Amino acid sequence: MEEQVKERIKFEPLRERVLTAEKAAQLVEDGMRIGTTGTPSGVACPISFFEALAKRAESGEKFKIDLWSAAPMSPDIDGKLAELGVINRRLDHQSNPVLAKAANSGQIHYSDMGSIWLAHQVRSGTIGRPDLVVLEAIEITDEGFIVPSLLVSDLPTLIQYAEKVIVEINLNLPLELSGIHDIYVLDSPPKRKVIPLTSPRDRVGTPYIQISPEKIKGIIISDKKSKLPQRAAIDDVSRQIGKNIVGFLEQEVEEGRLPENLLPLQTGLGALGGAILSELAQSRFENLEVSSSLLDDAVLDLIDSGKIKFVSGCGCFFTEEAMQRLVKDINKYKERIILRPLDVINSPEVISRLGVIALNSAIEMDIYGHVNSSHLMGTRIVAGPSGSLEYSRNGYLSIFMGPSIARGGDISAIVPMVSHVDHTEHEVSVIVTEQGLADLRGLDPRERATEIIGKCAHPDYKPLLWDYFHQAEAKGGHEPHLLSKAFDFHLRFMEKGTMKI
Amino acid sequence: MEEQVKERIKFEPLRERVLTAEKAAQLVEDGMRIGTTGTPSGVACPISFFEALAKRAESGEKFKIDLWSAAPMSPDIDGKLAELGVINRRLDHQSNPVLAKAANSGQIHYSDMGSIWLAHQVRSGTIGRPDLVVLEAIEITDEGFIVPSLLVSDLPTLIQYAEKVIVEINLNLPLELSGIHDIYVLDSPPKRKVIPLTSPRDRVGTPYIQISPEKIKGIIISDKKSKLPQRAAIDDVSRQIGKNIVGFLEQEVEEGRLPENLLPLQTGLGALGGAILSELAQSRFENLEVSSSLLDDAVLDLIDSGKIKFVSGCGCFFTEEAMQRLVKDINKYKERIILRPLDVINSPEVISRLGVIALNSAIEMDIYGHVNSSHLMGTRIVAGPSGSLEYSRNGYLSIFMGPSIARGGDISAIVPMVSHVDHTEHEVSVIVTEQGLADLRGLDPRERATEIIGKCAHPDYKPLLWDYFHQAEAKGGHEPHLLSKAFDFHLRFMEKGTMKI
Repeated sequence: MEEQVKERIKFEPLRERVLTAEKAAQLVEDGMRIGTTGTPSGVACPISFFEALAKRAESGEKFKIDLWSAAPMSPDIDGKLAELGVINRRLDHQSNPVLAKAANSGQIHYSDMGSIWLAHQVRSGTIGRPDLVVLEAIEITDEGFIVPSLLVSDLPTLIQYAEKVIVEINLNLPLELSGIHDIYVLDSPPKRKVIPLTSPRDRVGTPYIQISPEKIKGIIISDKKSKLPQRAAIDDVSRQIGKNIVGFLEQEVEEGRLPENLLPLQTGLGALGGAILSELAQSRFENLEVSSSLLDDAVLDLIDSGKIKFVSGCGCFFTEEAMQRLVKDINKYKERIILRPLDVINSPEVISRLGVIALNSAIEMDIYGHVNSSHLMGTRIVAGPSGSLEYSRNGYLSIFMGPSIARGGDISAIVPMVSHVDHTEHEVSVIVTEQGLADLRGLDPRERATEIIGKCAHPDYKPLLWDYFHQAEAKGGHEPHLLSKAFDFHLRFMEKGTMKI
Repeated sequence: MEEQVKERIKFEPLRERVLTAEKAAQLVEDGMRIGTTGTPSGVACPISFFEALAKRAESGEKFKIDLWSAAPMSPDIDGKLAELGVINRRLDHQSNPVLAKAANSGQIHYSDMGSIWLAHQVRSGTIGRPDLVVLEAIEITDEGFIVPSLLVSDLPTLIQYAEKVIVEINLNLPLELSGIHDIYVLDSPPKRKVIPLTSPRDRVGTPYIQISPEKIKGIIISDKKSKLPQRAAIDDVSRQIGKNIVGFLEQEVEEGRLPENLLPLQTGLGALGGAILSELAQSRFENLEVSSSLLDDAVLDLIDSGKIKFVSGCGCFFTEEAMQRLVKDINKYKERIILRPLDVINSPEVISRLGVIALNSAIEMDIYGHVNSSHLMGTRIVAGPSGSLEYSRNGYLSIFMGPSIARGGDISAIVPMVSHVDHTEHEVSVIVTEQGLADLRGLDPRERATEIIGKCAHPDYKPLLWDYFHQAEAKGGHEPHLLSKAFDFHLRFMEKGTMKI
């Protein structure tokens, strides 16, 4: 342990701040705003700290915290703390079913305003400062600076404004990971400068997060491993969606509308993102680039297959297998991956300058191109839309995708009107299901409806959708709707368990 | 005339291209894509050309064109051509009732995907190249370059990709206007460079639009004046909304969340934008800056009163009075105003870097903060949302505003669910009516509903809104809704002519 402390905390004065997770968790007081970050798979989560905090609640202590993380945390954190009733308010991105349930019942105040919102509000003082920031890290440098774990997220800004900071050093992460980060910290306007990135491979910051060492109130040295999930197989529907997208991109290149090696790709979380990257691994594309919030296993596949030239992300949403691969060949991967702060990589400035191709999942999409990516039946949240908000508005090309049906066919993902709008028709260029792909660029609403119903809807629902559209069209309007029937699909499902008639 | 040709066309070889508006209009062929720009007040519209084109249709000639303008044109162009059935497709921003009617009946294909969309699609080749670009200008320089009129819009990009260009020189515009423009032309990714603007007053381009002179197929010398409207008085409701916003901004400064002189302001078109700027003219703020697509009369008031330090815009949406003031004191105003291309000033990069405070109008707003700014009763378009899409997503603070009631009280602007979404809850920070102001930052949907109903709804509609919200809340969900009743306000209005019970 002594040896490890020396190795991991190079700045000597900080070595005396080493404490147990239990001691660190004692710093939490009722009503505190706690900033942190992690991934839903468990990578980069300061798990020892939060387990110790959960134990305080399990032992009967009564306290509540506001939990701020721009990335969804693992079930052991978001899920566990929600279950224990410890969370009062949760900002900003989450994807945990237990937490979602508590948000749906009104027990937890939850909102997601986009991936760069939290850092922005902290800087502008709107929501106050974090009382405590807890993060997983690899090491403390000679200067007393922090090399974070495999997710940068909002940590540079959270730390800058934090009252106190707890660092949890994860001994399972090799020191060789140091150097993978590029930390560039944004100022608030009017002092905001140009972010000088013009390619995913540019380095514009430091390989560590700068901090005044006195802010660090405790350092946990932990060899605890988050339980990472196994890699899921890609199902046929996702594979077909991936094929449809790759076919479309190939055509765009043929017609001279995209460069030979495309433009940097962003993919949302979940099975679909992985499926698309897998299809790209089998395509004729070469020298691809990725610029995306969270990187998943498929990114390593693409590096291994030589398809990817460079990857710029904010963190690694990896399974157990991918973590092992990364650690084993860290030096190889470090040549191709840079991790940056979320509000840099997802900044409107960088997304628009690089011309990112945005690939995001939808829960439902309507005949005019509006997208719901967060709320089932318009009310029950599954996950926040987060980064898809920035990418769909500011990307070069904004693609939304999903299976055409769900629940064994009882739900159609193409509906007359989405029951909740996260992305408007104005920021959706292309809609894809396993049935086909609708290219909406330059079309008016009626033309869009014809494309979407004709190409993306499941055959079981096409007659119902055509029927709605034709009835609405007969009544007229630039975007024809019958407000009395717009939610009939949803109402039928809620009443009878199926959207079918 | 000879004298004026020499004075206005400094590049000698182009003098032989002078022709009549009638001759120029003959260049238009059936099916052409015509790129142009102008303002709804008539400023910067190449009116002689379009009047001659309208005459061709009035004389019984059958032809259709696709008309591309990122700014709404005057009634004499958008309205007249729509009435004559000449427009097949209209991209991108419009606000004309005759054109809107034709779009609502399906006679004209119309869509508005945001203010920087058109230039982006032209560059990327998605919608083809313009066959002809027609623009109003001040002069042709010694090098054969064009000094455009009082609106830059997408002209630099449209001209770059155009087959042919017609320049209409407006002799009513003094040559002293030259120098007011700052033309910086964007490349498409992956060649896109940093836009080096860090303040509204920075000059980063040229004072003219570069063009190969052989592209210019005709130059119209015109002394025809567009009929500019008179300035409208500010009504009490708009004034109260302005007061509510100024009060809020004052409080933000007091609490240290905004600098003393605020951040650059963007205001949408219409009476409300002017009302807010008028209130600011009477406030304690000094050294204000404006960075907005179209500048209106109130900007000149603020310059005259010494309140404004600098104004950066894309063009001037002026009344007759403002035009006269500008022309009379052109040298004074030139020291404070720069006009830039729309895709520079409205770029995600510049909006986010400058930290623009976005002030946009809404048709209706719902209890959770979604905004409809385009479609009445979910179907009938009034005007496209255009620049508000970029500003609300990427600005420092996004404020939406409107009177709490319309049609003598039969319409409530606050509804349970908006019938069309242009701006989602994720990009709306503040909602304002004459009743009050709801600051939504950091709030979850239920908290937002309480703020919006409590502070912004008209007293006549509060009981109905509380009733809906409480019923929905009892049923549960993160964003409680009753899909079977979500549009009851609208359905009542369509049936009975009032949203009241």
